[in-house]
Amino acid sequence: MLMTAKDYMESLRKLKLNLYLLGEKVDNWVDNPIIRPSINAIAMTYKLAHEPENEVLATTDSILTGKKVNKFNALFKSTDDLVTKIKLQKILGQRTACCFQRCVGMDGINAVFSTTYEIDQKHRTEYHHRFREWLKYVQENDLCIAGAMTDVKGHRGVTPSQQADPDMFVHVVERRSDGIIVRGAKAHLTGAANSHEMLIMPTLRMREGDEDYSLSCAIPTDAEGVTLIYGRQSCDTRKLEEGDIDVGNYNFGGQEALIILDDVFVPWEKVFMCGEVDFSIMLVERFAAYHRQSYGGCKPGIGDVLIGATASMADYNGVRRAPHIREKLGEMIHLAETIHACGLACSYEGWQTMAGNYQPNTLLANVCKHNVTRFPFEITRLAEDIAGGLLVTTPSEKDFRHPVIGKYIDKYLKGVPEVPTEARYRMLTLIHAMSFGLVAPSYRTESMHGAGSPQAQKIMIERETDMEYKQKLARSIAGIDERENVLA
Amino acid sequence: MLMTAKDYMESLRKLKLNLYLLGEKVDNWVDNPIIRPSINAIAMTYKLAHEPENEVLATTDSILTGKKVNKFNALFKSTDDLVTKIKLQKILGQRTACCFQRCVGMDGINAVFSTTYEIDQKHRTEYHHRFREWLKYVQENDLCIAGAMTDVKGHRGVTPSQQADPDMFVHVVERRSDGIIVRGAKAHLTGAANSHEMLIMPTLRMREGDEDYSLSCAIPTDAEGVTLIYGRQSCDTRKLEEGDIDVGNYNFGGQEALIILDDVFVPWEKVFMCGEVDFSIMLVERFAAYHRQSYGGCKPGIGDVLIGATASMADYNGVRRAPHIREKLGEMIHLAETIHACGLACSYEGWQTMAGNYQPNTLLANVCKHNVTRFPFEITRLAEDIAGGLLVTTPSEKDFRHPVIGKYIDKYLKGVPEVPTEARYRMLTLIHAMSFGLVAPSYRTESMHGAGSPQAQKIMIERETDMEYKQKLARSIAGIDERENVLA
Amino acid sequence: MLMTAKDYMESLRKLKLNLYLLGEKVDNWVDNPIIRPSINAIAMTYKLAHEPENEVLATTDSILTGKKVNKFNALFKSTDDLVTKIKLQKILGQRTACCFQRCVGMDGINAVFSTTYEIDQKHRTEYHHRFREWLKYVQENDLCIAGAMTDVKGHRGVTPSQQADPDMFVHVVERRSDGIIVRGAKAHLTGAANSHEMLIMPTLRMREGDEDYSLSCAIPTDAEGVTLIYGRQSCDTRKLEEGDIDVGNYNFGGQEALIILDDVFVPWEKVFMCGEVDFSIMLVERFAAYHRQSYGGCKPGIGDVLIGATASMADYNGVRRAPHIREKLGEMIHLAETIHACGLACSYEGWQTMAGNYQPNTLLANVCKHNVTRFPFEITRLAEDIAGGLLVTTPSEKDFRHPVIGKYIDKYLKGVPEVPTEARYRMLTLIHAMSFGLVAPSYRTESMHGAGSPQAQKIMIERETDMEYKQKLARSIAGIDERENVLA
Amino acid sequence: MLMTAKDYMESLRKLKLNLYLLGEKVDNWVDNPIIRPSINAIAMTYKLAHEPENEVLATTDSILTGKKVNKFNALFKSTDDLVTKIKLQKILGQRTACCFQRCVGMDGINAVFSTTYEIDQKHRTEYHHRFREWLKYVQENDLCIAGAMTDVKGHRGVTPSQQADPDMFVHVVERRSDGIIVRGAKAHLTGAANSHEMLIMPTLRMREGDEDYSLSCAIPTDAEGVTLIYGRQSCDTRKLEEGDIDVGNYNFGGQEALIILDDVFVPWEKVFMCGEVDFSIMLVERFAAYHRQSYGGCKPGIGDVLIGATASMADYNGVRRAPHIREKLGEMIHLAETIHACGLACSYEGWQTMAGNYQPNTLLANVCKHNVTRFPFEITRLAEDIAGGLLVTTPSEKDFRHPVIGKYIDKYLKGVPEVPTEARYRMLTLIHAMSFGLVAPSYRTESMHGAGSPQAQKIMIERETDMEYKQKLARSIAGIDERENVLA
Repeated sequence: MLMTAKDYMESLRKLKLNLYLLGEKVDNWVDNPIIRPSINAIAMTYKLAHEPENEVLATTDSILTGKKVNKFNALFKSTDDLVTKIKLQKILGQRTACCFQRCVGMDGINAVFSTTYEIDQKHRTEYHHRFREWLKYVQENDLCIAGAMTDVKGHRGVTPSQQADPDMFVHVVERRSDGIIVRGAKAHLTGAANSHEMLIMPTLRMREGDEDYSLSCAIPTDAEGVTLIYGRQSCDTRKLEEGDIDVGNYNFGGQEALIILDDVFVPWEKVFMCGEVDFSIMLVERFAAYHRQSYGGCKPGIGDVLIGATASMADYNGVRRAPHIREKLGEMIHLAETIHACGLACSYEGWQTMAGNYQPNTLLANVCKHNVTRFPFEITRLAEDIAGGLLVTTPSEKDFRHPVIGKYIDKYLKGVPEVPTEARYRMLTLIHAMSFGLVAPSYRTESMHGAGSPQAQKIMIERETDMEYKQKLARSIAGIDERENVLA
Repeated sequence: MLMTAKDYMESLRKLKLNLYLLGEKVDNWVDNPIIRPSINAIAMTYKLAHEPENEVLATTDSILTGKKVNKFNALFKSTDDLVTKIKLQKILGQRTACCFQRCVGMDGINAVFSTTYEIDQKHRTEYHHRFREWLKYVQENDLCIAGAMTDVKGHRGVTPSQQADPDMFVHVVERRSDGIIVRGAKAHLTGAANSHEMLIMPTLRMREGDEDYSLSCAIPTDAEGVTLIYGRQSCDTRKLEEGDIDVGNYNFGGQEALIILDDVFVPWEKVFMCGEVDFSIMLVERFAAYHRQSYGGCKPGIGDVLIGATASMADYNGVRRAPHIREKLGEMIHLAETIHACGLACSYEGWQTMAGNYQPNTLLANVCKHNVTRFPFEITRLAEDIAGGLLVTTPSEKDFRHPVIGKYIDKYLKGVPEVPTEARYRMLTLIHAMSFGLVAPSYRTESMHGAGSPQAQKIMIERETDMEYKQKLARSIAGIDERENVLA
Repeated sequence: MLMTAKDYMESLRKLKLNLYLLGEKVDNWVDNPIIRPSINAIAMTYKLAHEPENEVLATTDSILTGKKVNKFNALFKSTDDLVTKIKLQKILGQRTACCFQRCVGMDGINAVFSTTYEIDQKHRTEYHHRFREWLKYVQENDLCIAGAMTDVKGHRGVTPSQQADPDMFVHVVERRSDGIIVRGAKAHLTGAANSHEMLIMPTLRMREGDEDYSLSCAIPTDAEGVTLIYGRQSCDTRKLEEGDIDVGNYNFGGQEALIILDDVFVPWEKVFMCGEVDFSIMLVERFAAYHRQSYGGCKPGIGDVLIGATASMADYNGVRRAPHIREKLGEMIHLAETIHACGLACSYEGWQTMAGNYQPNTLLANVCKHNVTRFPFEITRLAEDIAGGLLVTTPSEKDFRHPVIGKYIDKYLKGVPEVPTEARYRMLTLIHAMSFGLVAPSYRTESMHGAGSPQAQKIMIERETDMEYKQKLARSIAGIDERENVLA
Repeated sequence: MLMTAKDYMESLRKLKLNLYLLGEKVDNWVDNPIIRPSINAIAMTYKLAHEPENEVLATTDSILTGKKVNKFNALFKSTDDLVTKIKLQKILGQRTACCFQRCVGMDGINAVFSTTYEIDQKHRTEYHHRFREWLKYVQENDLCIAGAMTDVKGHRGVTPSQQADPDMFVHVVERRSDGIIVRGAKAHLTGAANSHEMLIMPTLRMREGDEDYSLSCAIPTDAEGVTLIYGRQSCDTRKLEEGDIDVGNYNFGGQEALIILDDVFVPWEKVFMCGEVDFSIMLVERFAAYHRQSYGGCKPGIGDVLIGATASMADYNGVRRAPHIREKLGEMIHLAETIHACGLACSYEGWQTMAGNYQPNTLLANVCKHNVTRFPFEITRLAEDIAGGLLVTTPSEKDFRHPVIGKYIDKYLKGVPEVPTEARYRMLTLIHAMSFGLVAPSYRTESMHGAGSPQAQKIMIERETDMEYKQKLARSIAGIDERENVLA
């Protein structure tokens, strides 16, 4: 069953989330103006599955059931499947201009799928079977799954089991015959308060002694003991104001939450790893590779909106053809497309896991993400350059609508005569939302820290490189080893 | 008379500003929580004048009267005076972590002083005398002056007199025996709603036909016909909430406003340029040189706070000594100090105008500012890297104080055990304020656009370079011209 | 017939080139020590065709004849074929550490193939048939073809037909019944003096009046009227010295020459464009896209050698595990792989021409090359950083072999005790060759100017972008156009 | 006595150097065409002392004797004296377009002067007195002094006394009543084979056990036991060819040599440190600060020539006014001037040592040099961009002069009609010399490694920063410490 955007929206109303926002418990969170844009953004992933021109990207046949499922719940069957993922993400970035939040689940599903297979192979466990069953259920109900990886971590220099407070990483506090009791917190969870279930994964390499922390399982977002605390967003309360301009991106937005798991019960059939310290890092790295690939799709898409907005501002100011403006717009495109090229390359160069689904090329996925930690910041800087100082000094929409001073603003904030002041206003606030405001974390912070901070990629790039081979090449050319005889 | 910070605050209460903010007219703007931090920031310039250890930087003897005056109202008497300006600005940046807004006035005063002298020399006018008289009054009353240069500009490709709407640049609409009538608007005026008077200056090179636009004069901020519309700031309404954490920088902030001049009368004694199209660009460039120098003082000071906050976050996370953290902190310092070095260099290499005050070296002041359009963005990017994703996902202070969920936050957002969660919280919101929130425009947008956008500096750098000399050197070394005989 | 490296070498001896080098006519150029390394580098393209493990990359079945041909003479039959091209080039870059020169021909062949098809469609000419016949001959004899595009250009601001000297672009000076007479020069031709024929192509967009300059044809390198003047290379005469260390890359090297065409006769069957000004730019841009793609293969391969050499120097100095060294090596890899990712992406995203062969994605190929104009320079800078100052201060091999002072050098230029001084010596001279010496142009200058200078890519990137679509996206998100209703 | 350039040249002839070059002992090294340009470059430092317009920069009154001495042998008496040093270096860079080699001596003299003073204070030694006497002798004879700091170092991870070979750092092997016996080698010594004496200094922090390595002394370049081995330079043998074009910079060049000290006797009166391990790092860091400052003078000067040459190439190609060319030239100037600004700033902000001479600001001098490790590389990259591919493909001068092919070259390598081909030729080879050839190490490698590699500056920048103060500022603004009350 493929839900429509409307179905999805309704399905959320059935959840009984224990959700807090700005110091208050929120009951009707679906209609809450601060939260709604993030629901809209996910809804777009449901919408595209029904659009004839995008269906081929947004849906696929399930390996498990043969039925048509939403791409975000599917296993990647081929490298082409990895490529369509990227292209779908680009379109979603273009249509929402923000994080659409459903990728963590998709990437987590694929990582847990192949890892559980290998755990079972080694440890003769039955995680993979359980996971397949759970995934069938998810696919059939077209649920939205939030991937939940990042622990709060406490002292970064200390392992999970050696923290002063043992709860700084999510862990099992009790093993029962019917299931386990889980405690801890997951930080800055993308898209939790608009998902049906969370897929819990460990956040780093575990070592002996960390058995209780080597945990993967599925938990409904409204399970007993789960508390969601919605993260503050830059300019969040603008959504509570009248009007639709100052928000910048009125319809769409990201969402992050701190998730508290206060002794939550998880039945065994939803437990996919429990104690296998030797597989924690495999799960982390497989997920990371997928998610670093993902950014080669969404961020170029979001970037396209920012580039378009910036070019429009140049139009509205009458300077679109000035050489230095063209040079800067060209640079923005070049950087956005470099990211996309990396996303495509790691997808095309993917490989098949033992379980049968596909992973992107690990080295190139890390290269992709590492560029993402740099280029969106430069793209944003260039957007701020071209947009002009008005970006941060425009009066409010209320001033613009004001009976006395509104006419001044309309008169004086006009650019070229043929464009209404309001259009310029709106374009400015959109750029503001993307560089400072509500969706800036979607383009800046996520680019930096999502799927791992820059240093994490540097470590992987070093590890995935065959440096010995490179040194061998150099020794041969230099004549330290025997030189290659081209005529031999 | 040197006002104290308290005197200054009281003096503002006497002004009858026609000020709008978020769609409402504000009467008691001095105590308005959105505006107050920007007043505090300027107040710091008054406070330092009374601090024994900073007095030497913050005050000086007036050329005009011999009396001790606040540095911000003084004429630069020497290159050393330019250097102390920079050092004072650095301290103020460190103490406020934002734009303290009084530099535009200081820089405008010095630019108008020397330009009026040269206008008078050529045109036999009496602007310089008038200006000296006005400046004496300003110095004696220790007024705060807002420099008002940037016009709203309309179509950027068209001269002032050829705009579809003749009011897109501030201009004289009537010349009377006792004074002139002025109309137009000045955009994103820094520190208008906490200054006593505005010093109006033209914004670009004027040409024949632009006589009415070649205008400099002084206007009280509460003069008849003046309307101030306060610019929206990122996260501005956080200041209206309870609590002091989410704002990030609770005490201090910048301020920009759109200023409407709706047929304002200015008496001749306050008119310092009126119709001399040939001197408009001199005034603009002299001001620009001062203000591009200024950023070599304030931005490194603000940067110091961001660097300190970032190092603190690394401490709180337990990773302060990790090599990649040290490398990045080192880079932040390197970039901030490069800017400061440029600020110092252009000051030490200053030159004396015909009127007797000093200008910074034009080429180096432009080089200074051009680096400012780049490095604070990279410093901010590195701060966001080290601060971590929590930067944009922390719950609100209200959540933190909440009886039910507050304890979760306190428990789970702790870093190293010995630092209270609240300290980490506060440091995060400070970095947020500087990278996304209330004072981000002070460090990012101002760095980009204040004192002219990047392209403006590129043009000046090209113009101030003696390229012909460089080509001559090359021709001689290359042997196209005769080579230098070192033994000759 | 697939020639071996030896066959190729012998085939060259039959050519009667009119070749000048360092002011002298060279008869036995095949054994000339300055030229030989460049022949070796091309020979490697012949060798790989016979290596079982590389045959699949280095050969393919001809579309024209169905027979197995060397990849460098083949038409690209699919996007996979474009990908294997890139991977082959990477291996060749790794094995030679320099430009192997045969790509211009391969890229030219593919561009002329599809362009002639479209010319014929429009102009009812027979170029395509002629070209197929010529290409069959080339494939069957496994000839090496030099692509010859760049004209000497004279005044860059003036079209070919308006130059003061009409010969600044290669052109037809006479049309005869049996063929044409051609005059002009092609500059910095890669691999001319080790190819059998040259494929002449125009270098830029032609306009009415430029008919004589819109020319493509094939000319044997030893045809009557052809003069080759070998370009000076940095440190070229080191190859004439005894010893094999100071050269750095003893076996391999690039080659560029100035080719004079002094009234050369070309029979009609070898003329592939003659006067069709409207197709000049198509040929240029198709070639450019192929060649910009190519750099996504060879440069990462060459880069691998430089990275390996740099890591080896760090080993030899005993600092390989220092964090700042690892950080820099990681950065070098990241940059090299970013280029490769772009090369792969534009290949996978290729498209089929009307003639049936495949082109890489134009936008991404330009993005690829544009990164190539930047990253190899930074990689080189980092290599110089890690290699140390000795890179430019080592004594000569002759000093090292000297009976009196050799022992001093052996003693004092030792790094870690377990590595012989000579190994360190050789690694240093290899890095020197790649950053300053004989093969530096292969990695630096070619990266900058080969396949078009940076500005050429910027123009194409701007042109290939659908900016109107991006602006539409922005207008919708901003609410200027109607916002998308996600529930609709 | 101030020598003229001619005097200096003659004085060199009296030295009996034991000098090897390209495997041969060179007797008449003054007239050797490979060495002579480096002598010319130093000679320029003597010439300027006699030029009326530069005398004020190039000479000063000695603190020691009150007599006029060459700046390169003088002690810095004030911050202004530090500034004139920078300005003198800029002029010399402009006039020679290469390293003029005499700065290491000047910087060493000043560092040893103040360090010996402090050693004597602590250890009751008499080094400072000895040094003053020696310096008087140097000043009176206007000798050229080569600073000799960098040891060959062997295994970089091991201290001097723990090296497998005890000679990897210069050390005392015997203490006699009349002096000491010294053994070891100094690497890539700038300007040794054109100096009269060498000033030996230690290269890093010493620890207990390294007493024999904590050594400073003066040794004549032709002392018994000294061997100089001249380093290979890129394209060095071009100087042995006929013609003056291909060399690029015919008159001037740098020079580095490996210096072997094979049991050299040094009388006590020339020993300035011997065993004081606690002062080794002070000497190193004082020298480093001076020399990092120096690069803020010479490199912008050399850069000016490269900028001028690049602008000329743009002229010769007819594209000087193209916006992208102007943008790139502007960037080159911006970067060069940023370096110069840092050089000026650290000079103006200097401080007085206990011995009375002046040091530049340590933090800013390190910031200066750190920018030098980056910007000249980017300036060079931009020069290569604008110069075009011909940079590495021009035929030789011999081809250009050749009776048969010379006319082709003259015809076809012409740019705009009004500039002779030869001028374009010469400008290209100059740029080649600066980016690849003879003087490229002066602008690239020296910028990287001279006065310490980049990591050395990073360490100093971290150390010289008051991070605790910055953190205090952040804590106060964040409200972790008490917030500042601006009204208090």
